[in-house]
Amino acid sequence: MRETYHEELNDVVNQLVSMSSNVRTQVHDATRALLEADLRIAERVIADDARLDAMHEQIEKQCFQLLARQAPVAGELRTIVAALRMVFELARMGDLAAHIAKIARLRYPEHAVPAPLEANFTRMAQLADAMIAAAGRTLDDRDVEEASKLAENDEEMDELRAEQFKVLLADDWEHGVEMAVDAALLGRYYERIADHAVAMGRRIIYVITGEAPDGENWPNA
Amino acid sequence: MRETYHEELNDVVNQLVSMSSNVRTQVHDATRALLEADLRIAERVIADDARLDAMHEQIEKQCFQLLARQAPVAGELRTIVAALRMVFELARMGDLAAHIAKIARLRYPEHAVPAPLEANFTRMAQLADAMIAAAGRTLDDRDVEEASKLAENDEEMDELRAEQFKVLLADDWEHGVEMAVDAALLGRYYERIADHAVAMGRRIIYVITGEAPDGENWPNA
Repeated sequence: MRETYHEELNDVVNQLVSMSSNVRTQVHDATRALLEADLRIAERVIADDARLDAMHEQIEKQCFQLLARQAPVAGELRTIVAALRMVFELARMGDLAAHIAKIARLRYPEHAVPAPLEANFTRMAQLADAMIAAAGRTLDDRDVEEASKLAENDEEMDELRAEQFKVLLADDWEHGVEMAVDAALLGRYYERIADHAVAMGRRIIYVITGEAPDGENWPNA
Repeated sequence: MRETYHEELNDVVNQLVSMSSNVRTQVHDATRALLEADLRIAERVIADDARLDAMHEQIEKQCFQLLARQAPVAGELRTIVAALRMVFELARMGDLAAHIAKIARLRYPEHAVPAPLEANFTRMAQLADAMIAAAGRTLDDRDVEEASKLAENDEEMDELRAEQFKVLLADDWEHGVEMAVDAALLGRYYERIADHAVAMGRRIIYVITGEAPDGENWPNA
């Protein structure tokens, strides 16, 4: 019985790692659809979001069954409670990737992102990718150091967003209201993906150490 | 022991109800700060968000302790797992109220919302208020009917957002890029508040009936 229990608990963690790799693909593909104005990829990202929602439902059910059947305590209870939150963070990142793909689809065959913001969004997407990967690795290796680095990446993400606003609110912006609004919303989506990765990292630190990480208020993560 | 347990469980639900009433005040005040360009109210909303974060932390701890000490099953386990999610939804609504207040503060002494969008945002805020109130009442009375109405309100919210885009992307928009970007982000914040209220309603239906509500995929809520 105990062995099955630990297998089931490991299975939940492994599924979260696999879900994070799926989310990474979705964000990567959504960015390609966006920057290359590729309708086929955009449609695929939007359709594939249902797969992440199914994973969400499945992992949540497993956590619930573990709680009901095994009455876990201490570190194991922390793991399951954190998993319930992390599966939600991952599902939200997936939703946000689908939102990005929907803007790409809406503007097709035009590019939603104008030339002066391309490099900025490319970097935002790279950072988001690195952050989801780091969250997944942290979960896999239980490496607190890795999770702590997420906060640094998040700072760069905030700077990139501030730069976007500077560009699109400048007097020489010549791409009109629609492209400015798209860029502001897209920037918000990438920023939120990063926030969810940071929140995951904080949950993992909590699982490993039993303490909420220092710094900001815990629920703000 | 069992009596204390049920008292503790009731206490969690009561605290969620009280938190929802706090969130309602925050959204209401953020809207006043926004539509009346009132800096004093904006600052207060931003400062008071820390109180909601503290409630989040406190309720989450209580849920964790209930799980650790009481090994709940069936309906009680569902209630606690749902509470862990609902406290997060409420904290996010609070964050979004603070985001709205921050835009009001950023544009002060100007109004962030131009005249052609005032009625629209007023209605969005009324709907958001009604939805948070309905989610709180549902939690208090365990009334599934009330929760089901949230989906209708959410549809009107989506229509209001679509109208906003029509107005700010129209050829006769004369309020510039900055006000259009503000409006798009503000619209997104109110829409997300509504989404969180709907998600809460769905969690409550699940707690009461033991079944995920019909319709959309459960985790999408």
